[in-house]
Amino acid sequence: MKLASIDDGSRDGQLVVINRDGTRFLPADGVRSLQQALDRWAEAEPVLRGLARRLDADESASGEVSQARWLAPLPRAYEWIDGSAYLNHMILVRRARGAEPPATLETDPLVYQGGSGALLGPRSPFPLPDPEWGLDFEGEVAVVLGDVPRGTSPAGAGACIRLLMLANDWSYRNLIPAELAKGFGFFNSKPATAFSPFALTPDELGERWQAGRLSGQLVCSLNGERVGQLDTGAGMHFSFHDLIAHIAQTRDFCAGTILGSGTVSNQGDAAGVACLAELRSRELLAHGEARTPFLRVGDRVRIELFDQQGRSIFGAIEQEVTAA
Amino acid sequence: MKLASIDDGSRDGQLVVINRDGTRFLPADGVRSLQQALDRWAEAEPVLRGLARRLDADESASGEVSQARWLAPLPRAYEWIDGSAYLNHMILVRRARGAEPPATLETDPLVYQGGSGALLGPRSPFPLPDPEWGLDFEGEVAVVLGDVPRGTSPAGAGACIRLLMLANDWSYRNLIPAELAKGFGFFNSKPATAFSPFALTPDELGERWQAGRLSGQLVCSLNGERVGQLDTGAGMHFSFHDLIAHIAQTRDFCAGTILGSGTVSNQGDAAGVACLAELRSRELLAHGEARTPFLRVGDRVRIELFDQQGRSIFGAIEQEVTAA
Repeated sequence: MKLASIDDGSRDGQLVVINRDGTRFLPADGVRSLQQALDRWAEAEPVLRGLARRLDADESASGEVSQARWLAPLPRAYEWIDGSAYLNHMILVRRARGAEPPATLETDPLVYQGGSGALLGPRSPFPLPDPEWGLDFEGEVAVVLGDVPRGTSPAGAGACIRLLMLANDWSYRNLIPAELAKGFGFFNSKPATAFSPFALTPDELGERWQAGRLSGQLVCSLNGERVGQLDTGAGMHFSFHDLIAHIAQTRDFCAGTILGSGTVSNQGDAAGVACLAELRSRELLAHGEARTPFLRVGDRVRIELFDQQGRSIFGAIEQEVTAA
Repeated sequence: MKLASIDDGSRDGQLVVINRDGTRFLPADGVRSLQQALDRWAEAEPVLRGLARRLDADESASGEVSQARWLAPLPRAYEWIDGSAYLNHMILVRRARGAEPPATLETDPLVYQGGSGALLGPRSPFPLPDPEWGLDFEGEVAVVLGDVPRGTSPAGAGACIRLLMLANDWSYRNLIPAELAKGFGFFNSKPATAFSPFALTPDELGERWQAGRLSGQLVCSLNGERVGQLDTGAGMHFSFHDLIAHIAQTRDFCAGTILGSGTVSNQGDAAGVACLAELRSRELLAHGEARTPFLRVGDRVRIELFDQQGRSIFGAIEQEVTAA
């Protein structure tokens, strides 16, 4: 099942069901928002699946996806937690700035708590107040959780995953060093994150979803030029199950919590990158200097995931950097 | 106006209005939850103020505060951001572990993004899975914000403050050093935060609320013994207005965001402490060793704020540490 939130002027948008090929939608009458559905998933899920079947059987009453304005599936969420599960990303970025990865790199997941009250839709322009802040995109996979009790194990974590999406975890790279030096983690250096239009239940992904990892080709483009085509199933050292068990060590999470994989990253140069920081790190290590500039007003970023048949699974995140 | 959320079995509770002396309440018919009221504050505020007037004029239809089960005013919030505005706390705690405060201590506020999806009520027991984690309380003042656009100035920040509360920002002190060493800030070391039963509009505080700082006596007790009686108006280097302008530098915040002051701390020994870490730091500096242990199962923490007439303004946070 594919779900999405259409912009109806409300804070949470109107929940809709999307047909299998991502072209038509039907409003979820009786379930106003995705958060409401997640709050009472056992009741809402069968209703929504019924609508999805109706839509696949008869499209006459449905709307056209291409004509609608999409919000993030959750335009505001109770938590947004981002991991760093593709270790290659961290190793590379830290190596470029002469820093060591943490000693517990392979045993203790790194996560940070991000802002979740104002999330961006897949086509939201990104207003850039100051190009010196070093704006960068980050292509990621994310899951939306149901209620997660403290102490959930990796084995029990799969049952807590309701939906998958893509994320663009915008970062101000040049604000990060001073902020992390203060010791309390990211804050101003992580502006609002954007999400793909569609959120999919795990069953919709079939064989591509295995043991808490998603397989697919994440294609990232800058101004129409492909900078990365990465296998999301390769190099994700900690699975989403591991990440859920990690975050749930000391507290509960409510339905609607979003958890990200961290920047998708594959070893070697062939696959390219899902963020400019990694490209700049590779340039620095190869040439002694970073050559690709951070983003400027007018730049366009596109992030999309394709299956083996070349179908776009979550719809595209496509955002333009604008003047603030 | 005093607002609170009564436990009716729902995720957000039922919003109620409390009378001036904190003894009686009236359900806010037509406004289900505090979040709903914050979402449409311009409409909800006059309705709620009308109910408050009705309650103060005639208590016959009202319920007794002492007989009700209170949730946090926002049992789940879209963001919980905690500052460290009482610099004495940070200086003292870092001095005790031989660390320097950041060079920008007095010019650049320290804040961290905390978990906000599962917040504790004023009487929630606190289940402790492992006493070795070093459980500590932290008495704080917190504000609930309306919508805050990016770029809000300190001068414009006051208009964004809807409500004030008290917070108990539970911490696992012994998990903090390893977690901060990883560089991404607190996560597992900060379990769910608890809040006072009542949330007050700024006008209700009269002269005690000045330029983004609250004056009052914050009394913290452990097992019935007073460990601190602190002036919340003294030593808050950054006001809430400063903190709001700081967090809004790079993104927007939605209505219902909670922002904390950080542990209240006064200079000198006379006022005592609002957390055990500070007491242990003072002991370490005076005697070469920390003598007060962290919290254990059975310990009871009470945090309350009094005005000059000795009235409890927000109701008490009173929690017992229980076996997990």
